Order: sequence, then C-alpha cells, then structure tokens
Amino acid sequence: MSENLKFAVIGGGSWATAIAKMLCVNLSEIAWYMRNDAAIEHIQKYKHNPNYLSSVEFDTAKLKLTNNINEAVAYADYVIFAIPSAFLDGELKNLTVSLSDKIIFSAIKGIVPETSLIVGEHFHIQYDIPYYNIGVITGPCHAEEVALERLSYLTIACGDPEKASIVAKHLSGNYIKAKISDDIIGTEYAAMLKNIYAIAAGIAHGLGYGDNFQSVMMSNGIREMKKFIRKVHKMKRNINDSAYLGDLLVTGYSVFSRNRMFGNMIGKGYTVKSAMMEMSMVAEGYYATKSAYKLNQGYGAKTPIIDAVYAVLYEGKDAKSVFKKLTESLD
Amino acid sequence: MSENLKFAVIGGGSWATAIAKMLCVNLSEIAWYMRNDAAIEHIQKYKHNPNYLSSVEFDTAKLKLTNNINEAVAYADYVIFAIPSAFLDGELKNLTVSLSDKIIFSAIKGIVPETSLIVGEHFHIQYDIPYYNIGVITGPCHAEEVALERLSYLTIACGDPEKASIVAKHLSGNYIKAKISDDIIGTEYAAMLKNIYAIAAGIAHGLGYGDNFQSVMMSNGIREMKKFIRKVHKMKRNINDSAYLGDLLVTGYSVFSRNRMFGNMIGKGYTVKSAMMEMSMVAEGYYATKSAYKLNQGYGAKTPIIDAVYAVLYEGKDAKSVFKKLTESLD
Repeated sequence: MSENLKFAVIGGGSWATAIAKMLCVNLSEIAWYMRNDAAIEHIQKYKHNPNYLSSVEFDTAKLKLTNNINEAVAYADYVIFAIPSAFLDGELKNLTVSLSDKIIFSAIKGIVPETSLIVGEHFHIQYDIPYYNIGVITGPCHAEEVALERLSYLTIACGDPEKASIVAKHLSGNYIKAKISDDIIGTEYAAMLKNIYAIAAGIAHGLGYGDNFQSVMMSNGIREMKKFIRKVHKMKRNINDSAYLGDLLVTGYSVFSRNRMFGNMIGKGYTVKSAMMEMSMVAEGYYATKSAYKLNQGYGAKTPIIDAVYAVLYEGKDAKSVFKKLTESLD
Repeated sequence: MSENLKFAVIGGGSWATAIAKMLCVNLSEIAWYMRNDAAIEHIQKYKHNPNYLSSVEFDTAKLKLTNNINEAVAYADYVIFAIPSAFLDGELKNLTVSLSDKIIFSAIKGIVPETSLIVGEHFHIQYDIPYYNIGVITGPCHAEEVALERLSYLTIACGDPEKASIVAKHLSGNYIKAKISDDIIGTEYAAMLKNIYAIAAGIAHGLGYGDNFQSVMMSNGIREMKKFIRKVHKMKRNINDSAYLGDLLVTGYSVFSRNRMFGNMIGKGYTVKSAMMEMSMVAEGYYATKSAYKLNQGYGAKTPIIDAVYAVLYEGKDAKSVFKKLTESLD
C-alpha cells in the first residue's frame, strides 16, 4: 500500500480487535484506542487482547495503543469506529480534535440511543461530516471467525467509491474478501435491522418454535427488511446480497448472537429487565427495535416482526400471545 | 370438509408419514401405500410407523393401509406421492390403474433419474397428465417437526388454484399453515435446487469453512437459484418467499439434512462412492446436481455453486481446490 494512509481503530471489543488484526496485515502501523488501561498494558506485554479474541497475537511494534481518543483521531486519516452504539455519543463528547478532515468509517451495528440515528446519519447530522467522508464496514462476519482466520466477506460502503476501495484494500487479506458498495444508508440499516430479527428468532426459539418456523421467520424478515429500507432510502439494491441477507443469516442463525440470546431469554419467560441484567450488556437490537418502530410510524411499511418485538420489549405485552398473533401475519 | 374427496399417500418414509398425519386431522379415512409389509403390520398393530416418525400415533381406523399401489390409486381422487425420486419411475411402472382422472400432488423433492425431469414434468410428459391436475407440496418443513407438532408453513402449488386450495385445506391444522401458489414449476425446481446448495454447504463445512462463509454461500445460493428458475420458467415470483428462500434455509442450515451430510463427508475427504456407501441411501441432491448442471448447459445461467458441486461429484475434481476457486466467484 503506497498511499501511506493512516488508520485508527476506536474500540477494544471483539469487532474492534478483529479489525485491528485485519489492518495489521496491510499496514506497518495503526493507532488503536480503547478505554481500558489494563487491556492496553496486557496487549503491550503479552501481544493479546485479554478480553476479546484473546487467541489473536499482535505484532505490538505496529500498534500505537492509547487510552486517549484524541490521540488516535489526531493520528489518523481514516477513523474506524467499532464500539457499542450506546457508548458512541459519550466518546464523541470527549473529542477536542476536529473530525472535519477525517474519513469516518462505522463498524457499529446499531442506533445511537441519544439521537435515534444510525451511525452514519449521526456523524452527518451532529458533526456535519459530508456523506462522501462517511462509510460503513459490514459483514456477514463474526469477529470470532476472523480470529480463526476463516474466510469471511465484508462489504465496505461509502458515498465516495474511492474511499470504499481504500478501506476494502486495507482490510483484505488471505481470509478476508471485501467488496464495495455505494449503499451507505441501506447497508447500515440492514446491519441494524438484522438485530431485531435476531431478537425475534431468539424469542421464537425460547417459546419452543422450531427450525421450520425459524426459516419462515428469516424469509419473512428479509422481505420486511427490504420494504423498510426501500422506504428509508430508495435505490437499486439486491436485498439478497451478502451485506443484507448474508448479514441477517449469520446473526439470525447464530446461537452466540447477543441479540438472539436476549430474545431467547424473553421467550423463556424472563422479563425484559431481568434479561438485560442477566446479560453483561444491552443487546444492540433493543435500541434498534424502538428506533425502527418509531421511524416506521412515519414510513408505514408493513413490518409485523418489528411490531411484534416492539410490543414485547416496550409495551410489556406477553411474548407468547404476541408471537401467536404474529404467526398469522407470516407466510 | 364436505367435499368427500378421497386422498391417498404413496410412500412409507418420514415425509409420507408426516403427510398422512396431517391428512388424518381433516379426513375420516385415507389410503396409504407403502412397500414394506412389516411396517404396515406394525402400524396396524401398534399405531406407529416403526421406521419413521415413530412417535406419531395414528388412529388406525382411519387408515386404509396397503402394499398394493394400484389399490391406493384406485381409491383416491387426490394422490400424493412422497417417495424418493429414485423409486418413482419403478413404482409407476407397477400401475395398472389409470392416472388420467386423478389429481397428482408431488411431495418429492428431486429429479426422476430415468428422465432427468422434475416430478411434475415427469407426470406431464410421461403420463400425459395436464398441468391443472398436477401440484406440488413444498416446505420449508422438516417432517420431524411435524411429528412434534411444531408450527410449520407449507406452500401448495397447482396449475388450478382450486385444487391447490383443496389440498391446502386438507393439510392445514393447528400446527400447519398452508398457502397456495400458481408457480408449480418454480416451487418444484426450488425444492430440487436447494438440495444442491445443501450439499455445497456440507462440502464447505467439511473443508473447514465457518458460519461467515455459510451465510455468504446461502446468500449467493438464493441469487443463483433465482437466475436458474427464471431461465426455466419466467414469471412473477418473490424468490424470498418461504417456498424458495425458506426451503433453502431450512435445508442448508440443517445438520440433519442428508444432502448436507453427504456434502460434509465429501468435504472431509470421502470419495463420492464411499460417502454414498456410508449413507444408507443416495442424497436427492446427487441426481439434482447432474440434472441441473446439464439443463443449464442449455440455459446458460451463471451458476458457480452448481458448477462447483458438479465438478466435485461428477468430474472427480478435488473439493478443496474447486471450492477455493468457487470462493472467488462469490460475493
């Protein structure tokens, strides 16, 4: 890579760790910000993130680790955000360095709770970043399989295709194939909506529905997602591309998905509150459900699955009867 | 059901047993043909099929069990075939009773090896049955979940929508929702093609590819299926309906699918012959692969997954290198 572009990764979780690993294949140096000092020290000493993808060994000579987000942002041309959406607003408030000449890529799959915006919109509206400087990194991709170097396909979307190509090139490697897309809005909505369908799949599983129903749920889910995204941003897209359908499937069929697990607990009879307390963190799909439901009050797309999950999570309705009724709307 | 229509089920396997169970909810009598005398005796004595879905209890007063296919066909207005496609031609050769006034529904997911035709076409071309008397019963539906009375959705396709409705009504119940379709060709091709993608998923799994790749495979698979079916029979259809995408998913993600298991063995290094010998029967997708590949020589749809499976199963190519090359064609 002759461009000598500088990249920073924002976040210390599993997806951030996977992205740092991918970048280190192609770059001699990256900045990597995480809040957790102990984790930074551990990586510097033992070459492994102690908390996430701990099997991945880093060449620490390549890592400019920092617990100061301003340092990481100041360093980079391309800043890749990979923190839970619930923490984004708080982190950005710590910024004193300007984002105006930065190219921002989001690897966050969710809604910013404070603004009910997807991440790209949040940067665009709140920070005045033009869409040609905003991009999205999307799967289908479990970070755990990147750690294992299992072949994975990414889609890199940006208003400016050249910037998408640059990020794609810097992430690609033996086990990563990255394609580019110009559907920055649609890919990010897909990444956020899929978590709602994963919660729905989890609820259904918890209630005792089987694999036959799961496949009907996914088949209805992708049709519903298509309608929803078309209302948000109409353009030519194939909803069966990996960034949409593939991403839905890898999450909806994963027993490790936090969203599916959260739904499963609700289906098994946990209250929303107790399911949240039981899990160490809130599933992204929890916020996504509220935001998608509210947004759709304006759009009016037919979204029986989102409506059902909303009724269970936010209206205190009984999952069993809500899903019984939902089954009548599916086909 | 006031029509007093008579139904016969042809076959003694798990899907035939599931269909017999569904029909018995709505009918006071059905004819049920199976070759295996011992199974018939067992059902009459113990109310359970000893070999398939043995947990299902039948009201034997409702069953006209017979080991004579002519008896069953002569009895019925609607004849539902649910035997492996490899046995269909042989069974039909035993027929002395005419099929000309019968309504034929196929619950077979495959190609008739002797004619390389899907079942509907086989009946139409070889037995001169008009398409308005031919129908298809398709999933997504594992028979095992019907036994457990888990909610499942069927699609009943027929050239004559009234006949589709009649079959749908007679199969529906508390745990079965059946919708109708006029895409008799497309639904049957989908049911046959999905087995090829399940073999591909199995091969990939056997070779060590993970869940990320599986979701990319399924996402490419449904796009490939759409192109293929459009070449065979162009009409307005939503490939993401349950009968197409749902059916692909329930099979492609099932660790119990014979087709996926067959592929998995190939991926793990078994030869095609030894994988076949290891399994008690040939996977439907084995024939489907050859037939789809040959058919597509005429159609010219871009089908890299079918081509890859064909190369492995029929051209003796090494699965590892074929799939390595396949990964370049997917996105």
